[in-house]
Amino acid sequence: MGDIFQQKVRMGMIGGGEGAFIGNVHRMAAALDGRIELVCGAFGQSMDNTLRTGAALGIPKQRLYASYSDLIRDEARRDPADRMEFLAIVTPNHLHIPIAEMAIVHGFHVMSDKPAGISLAEVTAFADRLAGTDCLYGLTHTYLGYPMVWQARAIIGEGRLGRLRKIYVEYPQGWLAENLEAGGAKQATWRTDPARAGLSGCMGDIGSHAHSLVEFMTGDRMSQIAAFLNAHIDGRRLDDDGAVQFRMEKGATGTLIASQVCAGEENALKIRIYGEEGGLEWHQMEPNTLIERPASGPALIHRAGTDKALDAEALARCRLPSGHPEGYLEAFANLYRDFAAAIRAGQSGAAKGVPGIKEAVAGMAFLEALVQSNRNDNCWTEVPVRSVDEAKKEKI
Amino acid sequence: MGDIFQQKVRMGMIGGGEGAFIGNVHRMAAALDGRIELVCGAFGQSMDNTLRTGAALGIPKQRLYASYSDLIRDEARRDPADRMEFLAIVTPNHLHIPIAEMAIVHGFHVMSDKPAGISLAEVTAFADRLAGTDCLYGLTHTYLGYPMVWQARAIIGEGRLGRLRKIYVEYPQGWLAENLEAGGAKQATWRTDPARAGLSGCMGDIGSHAHSLVEFMTGDRMSQIAAFLNAHIDGRRLDDDGAVQFRMEKGATGTLIASQVCAGEENALKIRIYGEEGGLEWHQMEPNTLIERPASGPALIHRAGTDKALDAEALARCRLPSGHPEGYLEAFANLYRDFAAAIRAGQSGAAKGVPGIKEAVAGMAFLEALVQSNRNDNCWTEVPVRSVDEAKKEKI
Amino acid sequence: MGDIFQQKVRMGMIGGGEGAFIGNVHRMAAALDGRIELVCGAFGQSMDNTLRTGAALGIPKQRLYASYSDLIRDEARRDPADRMEFLAIVTPNHLHIPIAEMAIVHGFHVMSDKPAGISLAEVTAFADRLAGTDCLYGLTHTYLGYPMVWQARAIIGEGRLGRLRKIYVEYPQGWLAENLEAGGAKQATWRTDPARAGLSGCMGDIGSHAHSLVEFMTGDRMSQIAAFLNAHIDGRRLDDDGAVQFRMEKGATGTLIASQVCAGEENALKIRIYGEEGGLEWHQMEPNTLIERPASGPALIHRAGTDKALDAEALARCRLPSGHPEGYLEAFANLYRDFAAAIRAGQSGAAKGVPGIKEAVAGMAFLEALVQSNRNDNCWTEVPVRSVDEAKKEKI
Amino acid sequence: MGDIFQQKVRMGMIGGGEGAFIGNVHRMAAALDGRIELVCGAFGQSMDNTLRTGAALGIPKQRLYASYSDLIRDEARRDPADRMEFLAIVTPNHLHIPIAEMAIVHGFHVMSDKPAGISLAEVTAFADRLAGTDCLYGLTHTYLGYPMVWQARAIIGEGRLGRLRKIYVEYPQGWLAENLEAGGAKQATWRTDPARAGLSGCMGDIGSHAHSLVEFMTGDRMSQIAAFLNAHIDGRRLDDDGAVQFRMEKGATGTLIASQVCAGEENALKIRIYGEEGGLEWHQMEPNTLIERPASGPALIHRAGTDKALDAEALARCRLPSGHPEGYLEAFANLYRDFAAAIRAGQSGAAKGVPGIKEAVAGMAFLEALVQSNRNDNCWTEVPVRSVDEAKKEKI
Repeated sequence: MGDIFQQKVRMGMIGGGEGAFIGNVHRMAAALDGRIELVCGAFGQSMDNTLRTGAALGIPKQRLYASYSDLIRDEARRDPADRMEFLAIVTPNHLHIPIAEMAIVHGFHVMSDKPAGISLAEVTAFADRLAGTDCLYGLTHTYLGYPMVWQARAIIGEGRLGRLRKIYVEYPQGWLAENLEAGGAKQATWRTDPARAGLSGCMGDIGSHAHSLVEFMTGDRMSQIAAFLNAHIDGRRLDDDGAVQFRMEKGATGTLIASQVCAGEENALKIRIYGEEGGLEWHQMEPNTLIERPASGPALIHRAGTDKALDAEALARCRLPSGHPEGYLEAFANLYRDFAAAIRAGQSGAAKGVPGIKEAVAGMAFLEALVQSNRNDNCWTEVPVRSVDEAKKEKI
Repeated sequence: MGDIFQQKVRMGMIGGGEGAFIGNVHRMAAALDGRIELVCGAFGQSMDNTLRTGAALGIPKQRLYASYSDLIRDEARRDPADRMEFLAIVTPNHLHIPIAEMAIVHGFHVMSDKPAGISLAEVTAFADRLAGTDCLYGLTHTYLGYPMVWQARAIIGEGRLGRLRKIYVEYPQGWLAENLEAGGAKQATWRTDPARAGLSGCMGDIGSHAHSLVEFMTGDRMSQIAAFLNAHIDGRRLDDDGAVQFRMEKGATGTLIASQVCAGEENALKIRIYGEEGGLEWHQMEPNTLIERPASGPALIHRAGTDKALDAEALARCRLPSGHPEGYLEAFANLYRDFAAAIRAGQSGAAKGVPGIKEAVAGMAFLEALVQSNRNDNCWTEVPVRSVDEAKKEKI
Repeated sequence: MGDIFQQKVRMGMIGGGEGAFIGNVHRMAAALDGRIELVCGAFGQSMDNTLRTGAALGIPKQRLYASYSDLIRDEARRDPADRMEFLAIVTPNHLHIPIAEMAIVHGFHVMSDKPAGISLAEVTAFADRLAGTDCLYGLTHTYLGYPMVWQARAIIGEGRLGRLRKIYVEYPQGWLAENLEAGGAKQATWRTDPARAGLSGCMGDIGSHAHSLVEFMTGDRMSQIAAFLNAHIDGRRLDDDGAVQFRMEKGATGTLIASQVCAGEENALKIRIYGEEGGLEWHQMEPNTLIERPASGPALIHRAGTDKALDAEALARCRLPSGHPEGYLEAFANLYRDFAAAIRAGQSGAAKGVPGIKEAVAGMAFLEALVQSNRNDNCWTEVPVRSVDEAKKEKI
Repeated sequence: MGDIFQQKVRMGMIGGGEGAFIGNVHRMAAALDGRIELVCGAFGQSMDNTLRTGAALGIPKQRLYASYSDLIRDEARRDPADRMEFLAIVTPNHLHIPIAEMAIVHGFHVMSDKPAGISLAEVTAFADRLAGTDCLYGLTHTYLGYPMVWQARAIIGEGRLGRLRKIYVEYPQGWLAENLEAGGAKQATWRTDPARAGLSGCMGDIGSHAHSLVEFMTGDRMSQIAAFLNAHIDGRRLDDDGAVQFRMEKGATGTLIASQVCAGEENALKIRIYGEEGGLEWHQMEPNTLIERPASGPALIHRAGTDKALDAEALARCRLPSGHPEGYLEAFANLYRDFAAAIRAGQSGAAKGVPGIKEAVAGMAFLEALVQSNRNDNCWTEVPVRSVDEAKKEKI
């Protein structure tokens, strides 16, 4: 009995073949804590790529598949003690929902890369179907795996900043400053293609992270936005840059900046939140530090680490004593660890500690509202609310 | 003859009595390089305050005046070899232009605190009158006195960033997070009073610095804006916070954030500018460092200092070898030093190296446009162009 | 054939039971890249602890052993296709060499925590024995796994700093500022006990890291030292703090500081190296950044990342694009990844890219010299040279 | 009466002609607060230089002197209401004491650059003579003028760090990495010449600052040292680099590093002090920040500024609200401001808040001890105690 509990959780993967970036990130994140085993995959668009990738990963040939439908169908036929338990989806965006749907139909839990899909309609329809199953759905908003993001949420939740007033979140990158898609760079090509990336480029890719971070840290909802989107390369069909003014449901206002044409910038996600009593600041590129500035008195440097007096949820996401830096892969691994634990614990719907279908729908609603605002002369636009609960209600 | 040249430039001052902040800053900035002597003043609203302030400054009683008009009139009657040569105006905003006008009518140069006045009409009318005199007019946009701001301008001017695309400028402060005006705090009271502060609070006070910094560094003009202004304290009649989307004449777009309700923030002016080939970042709170990020390769840390290979204009604004930090007062002193030199050099209109009437008008146009945009549902609004040259033309 | 190559490398572990810190770090580091499988262990001092730890790790009972000798003996009897291939030793220092010796006698490769042992004699004797086998020996000087440490080594190796002059390395920690051993804290108890920790406390634990970093980055040998050791807690029998003046063989001089009583410090290893043409600076707590300061001109910020133009060895140790922070576990994992690759490649003696027996001996020689210097009124003391080559020669 | 009080304090200056660095620094520092007027000088070695320098400063010809003795003698003959009140000495070290002696003999207060002289004997003899006068003597250890240095002293004085254990102070510069003296650079030439610089080069120039900072912040005395001095340029006759192990009278130990051959470094003075309960860290290059690290809990960022809750002495040394950076000149000006106030207040001996003869003697004792230790194989050496009180006693 104890033995069953300790058995590694079996993962399958769609996408992440040679030449992809994020697939290997998911694999490392899943491997880190030794609780998950990758047992099968359909990694590339060609079987050749899948075979090479799979061999390098030590996966036996019979569990390397030509397509996601083959994988799902064949795994579903295997002995339950042996078949994959959840499917990681790391393809371009347009395939997220089709694959996730087939997976839950066959009873597999799903861990999907973000954004959840390519339209709000698609994702809400999926949410409806998910609600009728016992499957777990997780969305890899990596940054919500960082301990100091949880620490910030706890500080705000305790009311230590007072009523919130201002939120500044920014996410400058530089990698699309050049016309990489012209040269056929894989990432750049699909991310700037509406058919595969969906309704937004930069905002879908990284603005969505900024949005989820705001809602997670504040425990509030971005309810109205005015969006300004740009594309800087001739012929680029999706935004590579933008800014969003927003209002939160509880009254705070803010600015969200996301750009992929800030030449020289790496991955500089940063958030500042101010209330009546003080403010917080967190930078993804130095993730183990969280600055708290009370309205008066010295600022405080909160630090990640198993030896620190942190909020319990933050502490649970640290592996090392302070001063031994943890980073992006550890944050990512926290999502996988919690997802695996939720599977073993028999949870359904959302995995405790992991962004799920609610965040998936909220993220798509945000993207849809901002594209609409941008088209309508940047006017203030409501972010549609369509919670999973409502989805459930509607179904009845 | 050489002796005349070396004589200190004689300054008078209106405002800056006991309890004021910026008056003493102007005095220290003017004193630092030993080229300017404060010879007279009308410092306070009461003669008592003026007498106490003047005595503490070692100014003889006969040159302490009850009002600005007394001061200007009486100084004008003194022997030219002895009377003040220029007048520093450090009062609340509504008095800037009336005093400046009387000063130039009597032939005195003017160094004014910013913003130039309380309305665009007022400032452009003044610009017209100034154009008909030989007087110099300087506007203390302090941050344009920092050497690394000049270095940034030089790097951009040389084209090292390529064509500019994105500009992010932010200016969070926290000092108005509380209702200080209710307690009668001097600064807070007039800065939140439309009669004395003018059409904008936070944007007039610090947004105007951010605006001038953008135009100065880029050598370009902010031509269109969409503004979002807020007031967070019940009964506060002017904005204490806001954000502006903007477009530059040459095509770059950007976001300007300014706030005085970011509890815990000090004076965190920061600017980032990105072009096709790289980006720059400068923080006022660590002013001796300028980061340049090429699109690829290591970022560069440019540092202020007389021993550094800097642009000539930047170098001319350093007093100390690198590693001996210079700060706000030194930046401020650079404006005064250049203004005094311009007087000795017999310049008129604008003092070389000092923001002048052109920046004064541009700043007011910016404020007027943003108040208008905010009223009109944050719609895109043209920033009116009314250069001094045009003012001159119109007059003819 | 390809299949055999891709098979995971099978690892056993001694130490790292419940309550230990470093054991789990080794396990995560080994797991991260999916190339190593933990197949057996003797984790705790009690079989109970080992069983609990092993079950939580999903290791079958029959491969959980009561002692290291049981483990080595029994694994040696298993089918070669199934038995462990290398043994990770994560016990207190006094057991490192006894276990390592038994392991190599039975043909197992060894990955040992540092320092290698408790005396120079013990470690050189082991080096002799190792030289007569085909076994690999690795020593987890974690910090040598960081990409920017390799980048620094490459910059120095290329001669970009010119002839080296000064080296400052410092390693302040605060965790032993209190008398933790009095309270029975596991780590503190054995690390302050000469019988288990060896001849030095703080220097053995962290000074040895600083020493290895200096020799690795410079490609030079610390040949003479004058050491100053202290113990700050009544009754503490080993140093908890110290400073070392040193001379390198090629002429540079430097200072090494290590302390575990710097209350409030985390794990602040930092190194600066200066040559005639410039300097370098690296902090372990922000490991993805390496500052290079040429004698004149702007400093350069080198950054880790798969998308950066780095030295090939540095690049090979990055997993993520720049701006996605990698940390301590990734550095550690680099050692394990290279060690596993060396096993598959059939290397013997030292694993390419992993500190080995040479560093083990050098580290112990350093510790022995500093204890001697400290006893002799801090006088200059030669660090004995006893390279593996010499060990081999002597044997003949 | 009030009028007399407000009169500016009249300063003379020896040294600081064209081509010198520190003279102009003293002048700006003295000018900043508008309380001091430079009335006379013997600036250069040639009268020509003095005349040019004086003219540029607006000093009338009749108060420009060919030599320091001329200046002192002639000023002493002027009307007391008009003659200089104190003399700033900014020459190379060997002239400090001869000039200071003549000045006090004629009743002038003295503000001297550091170190006080070229030998301990010379300085203690001067201390004896000073004790017999009503003159003030100030020594410009600039860094003791920084507000956050006073804040650190206050935190330590309150016992917030507990009993002190460790002190690390470092002062790397790079400007003498090359053989500048060979090219005749003025600064480099005299600073490397024992006849003009005294018994030590680097330690005399900057090690003495580090020493004074340690004693000031801790309120304790460096009682024993072991020193390691180096010269890196062929033919350089004084140390350009060194390290010192030290013991404080109350038991703390530490390391002092000072170097002028750290190519690429600017003026990176930094100090860290640790006690049983926590630690402090201050960097001269970011002087408005002081980090306090309690043994547990978040670190605190103390910030300079007139709006901060600081120790009264620290606050008294701030001119601007936080976030408006003050720097080196402001710290320097604090010494001058306090010195001028002490003159007006009729103090004698030491000026409140300004390093004086006690620090002068302590600094020379430190230098003499370290040169001796270095000669004696770096052995532990007592720093001789010869306080002013003792000097006074001896005289009796």
